Amino acid sequence: MSPIELRSDNAAGVAPEILQAIEAANSGSALAYGGDAWSVRLQAVAAEVFEQADLTVFPVLTGTAANAIALSAMCPPWGAVLCHETAHILRSEGGATSMFGGGAVMRGLPGNNFLLEAASLEAAFASTRWGDPHHSQPAVVSLTNPTDFGTVYPLARLAELSRCAHEQGLLVHMDGARLANALVSLGCSPAALTWQAGVDVVTLGATKNGVMTADAIVCFNAEVAKTLTYRLKRAGQVASKMRFQAVQLQAYLNQGRWLTWASQANNAMQALVRGLQAQGATFVVTPQANMAFVRVTDDMADRLQAAGLLFYRTAPGVIRLVTSFQTTPVDIEETLVRWQQCL
Amino acid sequence: MSPIELRSDNAAGVAPEILQAIEAANSGSALAYGGDAWSVRLQAVAAEVFEQADLTVFPVLTGTAANAIALSAMCPPWGAVLCHETAHILRSEGGATSMFGGGAVMRGLPGNNFLLEAASLEAAFASTRWGDPHHSQPAVVSLTNPTDFGTVYPLARLAELSRCAHEQGLLVHMDGARLANALVSLGCSPAALTWQAGVDVVTLGATKNGVMTADAIVCFNAEVAKTLTYRLKRAGQVASKMRFQAVQLQAYLNQGRWLTWASQANNAMQALVRGLQAQGATFVVTPQANMAFVRVTDDMADRLQAAGLLFYRTAPGVIRLVTSFQTTPVDIEETLVRWQQCL
Amino acid sequence: MSPIELRSDNAAGVAPEILQAIEAANSGSALAYGGDAWSVRLQAVAAEVFEQADLTVFPVLTGTAANAIALSAMCPPWGAVLCHETAHILRSEGGATSMFGGGAVMRGLPGNNFLLEAASLEAAFASTRWGDPHHSQPAVVSLTNPTDFGTVYPLARLAELSRCAHEQGLLVHMDGARLANALVSLGCSPAALTWQAGVDVVTLGATKNGVMTADAIVCFNAEVAKTLTYRLKRAGQVASKMRFQAVQLQAYLNQGRWLTWASQANNAMQALVRGLQAQGATFVVTPQANMAFVRVTDDMADRLQAAGLLFYRTAPGVIRLVTSFQTTPVDIEETLVRWQQCL
Amino acid sequence: MSPIELRSDNAAGVAPEILQAIEAANSGSALAYGGDAWSVRLQAVAAEVFEQADLTVFPVLTGTAANAIALSAMCPPWGAVLCHETAHILRSEGGATSMFGGGAVMRGLPGNNFLLEAASLEAAFASTRWGDPHHSQPAVVSLTNPTDFGTVYPLARLAELSRCAHEQGLLVHMDGARLANALVSLGCSPAALTWQAGVDVVTLGATKNGVMTADAIVCFNAEVAKTLTYRLKRAGQVASKMRFQAVQLQAYLNQGRWLTWASQANNAMQALVRGLQAQGATFVVTPQANMAFVRVTDDMADRLQAAGLLFYRTAPGVIRLVTSFQTTPVDIEETLVRWQQCL
Repeated sequence: MSPIELRSDNAAGVAPEILQAIEAANSGSALAYGGDAWSVRLQAVAAEVFEQADLTVFPVLTGTAANAIALSAMCPPWGAVLCHETAHILRSEGGATSMFGGGAVMRGLPGNNFLLEAASLEAAFASTRWGDPHHSQPAVVSLTNPTDFGTVYPLARLAELSRCAHEQGLLVHMDGARLANALVSLGCSPAALTWQAGVDVVTLGATKNGVMTADAIVCFNAEVAKTLTYRLKRAGQVASKMRFQAVQLQAYLNQGRWLTWASQANNAMQALVRGLQAQGATFVVTPQANMAFVRVTDDMADRLQAAGLLFYRTAPGVIRLVTSFQTTPVDIEETLVRWQQCL
Repeated sequence: MSPIELRSDNAAGVAPEILQAIEAANSGSALAYGGDAWSVRLQAVAAEVFEQADLTVFPVLTGTAANAIALSAMCPPWGAVLCHETAHILRSEGGATSMFGGGAVMRGLPGNNFLLEAASLEAAFASTRWGDPHHSQPAVVSLTNPTDFGTVYPLARLAELSRCAHEQGLLVHMDGARLANALVSLGCSPAALTWQAGVDVVTLGATKNGVMTADAIVCFNAEVAKTLTYRLKRAGQVASKMRFQAVQLQAYLNQGRWLTWASQANNAMQALVRGLQAQGATFVVTPQANMAFVRVTDDMADRLQAAGLLFYRTAPGVIRLVTSFQTTPVDIEETLVRWQQCL
Repeated sequence: MSPIELRSDNAAGVAPEILQAIEAANSGSALAYGGDAWSVRLQAVAAEVFEQADLTVFPVLTGTAANAIALSAMCPPWGAVLCHETAHILRSEGGATSMFGGGAVMRGLPGNNFLLEAASLEAAFASTRWGDPHHSQPAVVSLTNPTDFGTVYPLARLAELSRCAHEQGLLVHMDGARLANALVSLGCSPAALTWQAGVDVVTLGATKNGVMTADAIVCFNAEVAKTLTYRLKRAGQVASKMRFQAVQLQAYLNQGRWLTWASQANNAMQALVRGLQAQGATFVVTPQANMAFVRVTDDMADRLQAAGLLFYRTAPGVIRLVTSFQTTPVDIEETLVRWQQCL
Repeated sequence: MSPIELRSDNAAGVAPEILQAIEAANSGSALAYGGDAWSVRLQAVAAEVFEQADLTVFPVLTGTAANAIALSAMCPPWGAVLCHETAHILRSEGGATSMFGGGAVMRGLPGNNFLLEAASLEAAFASTRWGDPHHSQPAVVSLTNPTDFGTVYPLARLAELSRCAHEQGLLVHMDGARLANALVSLGCSPAALTWQAGVDVVTLGATKNGVMTADAIVCFNAEVAKTLTYRLKRAGQVASKMRFQAVQLQAYLNQGRWLTWASQANNAMQALVRGLQAQGATFVVTPQANMAFVRVTDDMADRLQAAGLLFYRTAPGVIRLVTSFQTTPVDIEETLVRWQQCL
């Protein structure tokens, strides 16, 4: 019985279109460190996709680097990054934001469905001793979208949080490790989800959705962009053969591929969720992207594992299922059949 | 109507005995940076007071430096310092621990009466992905004693927390900005409150209790002590005329002065609390050292202020009162009289 | 007249064998962050190639990251990294070593032919105030091999420098951004050039020699290796789809490909040097790997440029020529012809 | 035979006027962390002494903190601080500037008489790859005045260096650990030596010249000043009872005491130098402040030590003599007598 991969979208492979683009770029010599034609062209591609001529896009090599280095350029060392208490930057990046941020701190706030709320922000602002150097000064609101729990910020919520942040002088960062999945879930444009919603800098994840080794910082704030050039180099994030990162990102954004692939992942998840619900399964929170947290007994989890389903146990009585662009309808059908047999 | 100082023990002056000691040390020349006889003698004084020959005492210039630099020597940059969610290091030191710690993070945990609990520690340990570099690794438990809310850890609780920490491989730090107030409150020896209770490093506050410009790190762990010499110098915490810090600390520890002064502060607080209770006042938590948080209406707070009482409003409906070694019985009587008149 | 690429080996493309290996690894799902079979296998490949079972190899994404993060694990924040005053880490990594090192400093030392000398090290040691925290404590000797000026450390020199460093308690780091070029130049084994010569940690460059996006830290010191796992993750250097880094490095090391490719680059340089010498050219230093610094007048440089040679002007009257694994005998012949015509 | 202190001005005691000022400030309670009347008044005193209403003065606790934290506010983490290769910040502060600076680097430049030269600056600028993130970007010129070798920058030199720095977009920092000694040596006003000469931020040393525990950052640049408030707190440099630092600095600056005391030190040195020259002694460089480096044989140094002179041997064949505000004419006479006897 062949295993079915539901552990992580990171476990998926690389889309053939990405490999083809890499091969196509492997012709002749090209200046290193972004001095090549592909890197230059990526700016135009990103500007078009995000409908914003004044952005700067910086290819980087991992999502942790994208988040932490972007935040270090947005937050002074004595500042605080406000985020949900379950944010990826807070729980799963080994303190990268505090290291690159020169000791900037992260402050986790509560919020239903793993989403920040304006009320949480306002409470945090109210409890801040503004201008008092004893107290880390809130400087950035960071939103993970979709969250690590598969929920998605509606546009209205984003706009409200951004307004709330900007009124208080904070910048807004979006951790878009799975940005395409949010776009597909909301059915909105990249512009609507980012700068039009008040986002100043977005981390554009690509590796979880078909790309091999490339993520990016998309920066809508010129002041922040100026320092990123220096910060990224000394952080070891400027690939010498950067054309191969640039071309991966271009191929990803071109022809709507990122959305196509995210749709495959999201659709697979929706089919899975419908099927599981039909079998009586319950979820920690309603899945809105490509991730579900299902309540199962330990015995059931053991049986599912024995049945060849690959997943993580994330808390007592809870397993996480993740679909990717490579998850097929057959994978979902087969998963549902095996699940049924395990009940 | 003369004001009565209840804002902070930091607002108090310097004890005459400290000034006399400074003057006495101001005779002749002496090697800088701790190469003087007073600094050498301080080791012996501390060893005797803490009944521990193997300690190392490092004079420093502020409590923030003492805490943050001690923690940087106890916690790797990828580690986490576990502390109560209201800890001074987390809320009132501007992120110093993360800066000196190279990006180490602080993780605030809940606990009744502003005290950490073994259950909180165990829950934190259980939710830690040990050995997983995505996850900041708990490396130190930091306890503020007394807490910033005037509560004190009983010895049994300390021993329990230390055992819990050590079993998991963590070190134990005590923020003793008001250590003498805890000693007096508990009626125990410095040894009992620190290394005998499993504390590896204690920040010995002195400035809040009669000293002018000197605090100290008292280190019971030889490995940690080795790196502090380097860390303190480059942090700008090694006074060139260190004899004047050393002699302040000696005068403070000698003849039980630190305990005498802390007793004055604690006794004044006890008298104040008894008097306020007699007038029907209620407290956020039972005061155990030299600090009380009293519930008052905004109007009452205004009247108290108008009556010349100096205090801080720390939350809606709550004021903080702090006594120091300079608070006199007359101050307390007068405070109670004015309070009565404001009711 | 088609341009001839002599600017940098970074400007070269990717070897077909590397792309084939990537494609071969793109089959099925695989755990992220190094939990895949390719990453596991890489350990065995490296152990065999370096004839050392006790090494640990960490794939990283850039040479700057490899150097700076390795050094941060070898040098305490209050330490100094001793290197040649022209070292890449000192002049071309934007201060990465000081950032990742928590404020560790680099100390540039003189040395003929861009190579460190034991006498320079000994002079540095003699001028160090050991144990004095006012003075950054030398903790690591870092050697670039080949140097950024195309010279190579002979084995005897390496052994002497390592002995000198170790006797004083320092560790030895080798920046092997072009390690294969040194190996080919010296005709020695990887073991002989590294741990047998006293090197504790070597940065294994691959990107300049046919690989797309992968370098590595090869660590022969178990204490250092332990902390690298944490340091690399929080530095954003742990690729989520790490199998694609691991497989690039395997393909690079397997079947002696790294040496074959470096031989192509070195041989091309030797042919170029012989040809230029025959035309009367002089060099800043005798080229020993794949790089030459040629003395030319500004007019000559202009003519060479007009003739389609691509190179950098690195100092007044000096141009740098670099060959790569893609430089062909025809490229060299053609270069020599054009050079002759420009005289 | 009583010893004569010539090791360091740090070894001197505290001037009685300073102690009296401390005692005078020890009356009643006062808000902590600079919220007291003395700290407020210090601004006015400094503004008057430096003839500049727009300065901000920050009391700190050590000279290392003053330098390193000021520089961290002047230099981005990817920047370089240019200084003389013998600068105190480079050789004697344990890398503090790189730590507080988030990995900023120091670049030592040559210059006769231990003084930076415009030609050195220009050579450094010429060798900088401006805007290239591989290369640490020069952002500050730091001048030690007097130098650690007892030489003093003439006003014309300062103006030239500042112009050179500013034209290139760099800020100018002056390490004035012994600023009063430079003022006395040059016979100029504090304004002339600092902001009128283009200095943006000066470290005002006081501890080496009669004060107990207080130095200061005097900041003429409003942008820099804004961040220092935060940087100093989290660095543990904001004394809780700051009134006692403020009052020391006031007493120091008031009534020209700092100049009187520096005159005593400088005059003592001049008398010593004249006397030694009369005995045939030679100096490494002509002493211009309160410090001399005398060439003596090892035997002679042994005899001088046996004769009760306290000094440091700073290099083979060289001893350092330092006078302070406490060095008396009798000390100098007696030193010369003993020296004569040792010849």
